[in-house]
Amino acid sequence: MRVLGLMSGTSGDGIDVALVQIHGRGWRLRAHLENSCTLPYSPRVRRLLLRLANANRQPILSVAEISEANFLLGELFARAARQACRRFRVRLAAIDLIGSHGHTVHHQPRAGKRTGAQVASTLQLGEPAVIAERTGIAVVANFRARDLAAGGQGAPLVPYVDYLLYRHPRRGRVALNLGGIANLTVIPANASPQKVFAFDTGPGNMVIDAVVERGTHGRLRYDRSGRLAARGQPLAPLLRRLLRHPYFRRRPPKSTGREQFGQEFAESFLRQARRSSLPNRVRTATELTVESIRLAFDRFILPRARVHDVVLGGGGACNTFLVERLRQSLPALTFIPAGQLGVEGKAKEAFAFAVLAYQTWHGQPANLPSATGARHPVVLGVIVPGGGSRA
Amino acid sequence: MRVLGLMSGTSGDGIDVALVQIHGRGWRLRAHLENSCTLPYSPRVRRLLLRLANANRQPILSVAEISEANFLLGELFARAARQACRRFRVRLAAIDLIGSHGHTVHHQPRAGKRTGAQVASTLQLGEPAVIAERTGIAVVANFRARDLAAGGQGAPLVPYVDYLLYRHPRRGRVALNLGGIANLTVIPANASPQKVFAFDTGPGNMVIDAVVERGTHGRLRYDRSGRLAARGQPLAPLLRRLLRHPYFRRRPPKSTGREQFGQEFAESFLRQARRSSLPNRVRTATELTVESIRLAFDRFILPRARVHDVVLGGGGACNTFLVERLRQSLPALTFIPAGQLGVEGKAKEAFAFAVLAYQTWHGQPANLPSATGARHPVVLGVIVPGGGSRA
Repeated sequence: MRVLGLMSGTSGDGIDVALVQIHGRGWRLRAHLENSCTLPYSPRVRRLLLRLANANRQPILSVAEISEANFLLGELFARAARQACRRFRVRLAAIDLIGSHGHTVHHQPRAGKRTGAQVASTLQLGEPAVIAERTGIAVVANFRARDLAAGGQGAPLVPYVDYLLYRHPRRGRVALNLGGIANLTVIPANASPQKVFAFDTGPGNMVIDAVVERGTHGRLRYDRSGRLAARGQPLAPLLRRLLRHPYFRRRPPKSTGREQFGQEFAESFLRQARRSSLPNRVRTATELTVESIRLAFDRFILPRARVHDVVLGGGGACNTFLVERLRQSLPALTFIPAGQLGVEGKAKEAFAFAVLAYQTWHGQPANLPSATGARHPVVLGVIVPGGGSRA
Repeated sequence: MRVLGLMSGTSGDGIDVALVQIHGRGWRLRAHLENSCTLPYSPRVRRLLLRLANANRQPILSVAEISEANFLLGELFARAARQACRRFRVRLAAIDLIGSHGHTVHHQPRAGKRTGAQVASTLQLGEPAVIAERTGIAVVANFRARDLAAGGQGAPLVPYVDYLLYRHPRRGRVALNLGGIANLTVIPANASPQKVFAFDTGPGNMVIDAVVERGTHGRLRYDRSGRLAARGQPLAPLLRRLLRHPYFRRRPPKSTGREQFGQEFAESFLRQARRSSLPNRVRTATELTVESIRLAFDRFILPRARVHDVVLGGGGACNTFLVERLRQSLPALTFIPAGQLGVEGKAKEAFAFAVLAYQTWHGQPANLPSATGARHPVVLGVIVPGGGSRA
């Protein structure tokens, strides 16, 4: 089967598309990344996505706007699928299935006073019926809701795919993905699926990007190769304060997002660092990512599992300074770029949702309860039939 | 197959559940209503639904609230399915499929300046993944999005089922459903599916209910048997003004909802009738329903098709005064209660979504492009797999 994976990450930059060849069933599935690309959003859409994300607790949206954003994003995902196929020189009719993650505008897997949520819930926009209609291809979407309904966090879902890709008979591995949020999957040597665990460590690029964008008045959107951070010094007292955030101390399974490390967090950060130079601020944000990952290893990983390798992916893997600091913080581990083991970093999540869609299509559960905290394995997502009468 | 249909109408009263036995395929499908009931919402949920409906153009909601309402309603639908099965004395395991319409909080099938919508869209809440997880049964949901994506209005969808139930070799029939909104399906004698057309005529009980509820300070929620209306006189100048609403003149296919005849409309009505007695106001609202239906027959139905029977369903069919006034307005037609032809009025929509779910499950398109305006037939909705590993 040839499956297209579509992903719109928390960074809100664009739509990642992966074309994946998949065969086999269950744990014996084989997936091969044929091609991938990223189609950037227009500035108008980026603004809409930021508005939706930051509107989480601010009552500034109408039901109509959210409904419209859902259909608009459906059109954009459909267009991305078509554009990517042209770029890959593959006919749309040669694609058997699409797995579309959608764009997360709300994710609060715990209800209660602490979170301010009456009900645990998650919401991804990008109407799959629009994608199916425009492409004529069956779509699997809305992957997170069922795991949440089964008592899980609805995240992370990628660890299932990490296990398929990276498990090793003799080496313990941690797949570390540096997206807006940094997340990792721990796969002990020769582990059964039940031994895999995973969680979000906290910010990946999210705080760094916000600090750079504010500090350059939008001229730069990220710290290319970590050049700014390399010229700065960390603000030690601020860093210590930031690392006291309760999220870093919570035991896994846990997941986070823009709700906790988004605009509000960045604004508080900038208020506290307002007298420092841009390089010092960026360096501090970079160290926050590095330190929170190191703490996660010390507190939650190394006491439970022997680790040999870190498989590094996500946009942050291009930040050479950040990666160098991570190496220094975890000197006993071998760092392997994800691309070397089959899937280039940036394409990873789109690849993962192609694989998860394939499993759903075949009625195969594909959450890892040890990673999400769900009570049992579930078949993820909804299936939208393809062309039907048009086929 | 035994299929459970779940419907939450625009009135926001409760969840209608229908248990339907279905066999056969395509147009030769046979469906039999085994049982049905309505499980009322708590006052708290009713308030939430009204708030969601009226928040359409008022920016008073956060993304979090909508996401939470989606999961909360999912829980309520799941509970309704389980309660109904206990009441019907049927084990949950004996149900093969659930068709859940969800609760519509936004429906604007046309974009453009006139409608104020940037993008055509529709949004039904009641997360189907929650229903599937709590019942272990596969769920078909989100029926309207695909038809909308195919250029249709996403409504009405019930005409497909009306055609299955009521088509007659020698008699032209109109299935008239008096819900919050009044909608009808025209099925000429011996018609092919392409000859069927359908549209919403305008308010059914929506304006009457609002006028009664306001006028009695919530003591009454509807005009039982039309007793209030029967004691009043219509306010003729106001009625004439109300009938000038552009919706009544627009050619089918067309559909409407609370956006046009909801709270704002009722408030404007009440302002204009503030010096009149409650019975006069209720009578005027009742005549608005009667007259808008008569106009629809005169303008859009009788010029196109010969009609013999009106098959009458929906909550408004219990308003004997309203029905009597309809008979007087359309004296040449025979009125048949829907229950007499197989499906009791109140259960009709829940029944319909059981049938539509069955068709989707079998990959069968089930919109009527002549009714919705879609460019072609489409398979409706999304499929959420059932118990999976729990089964």
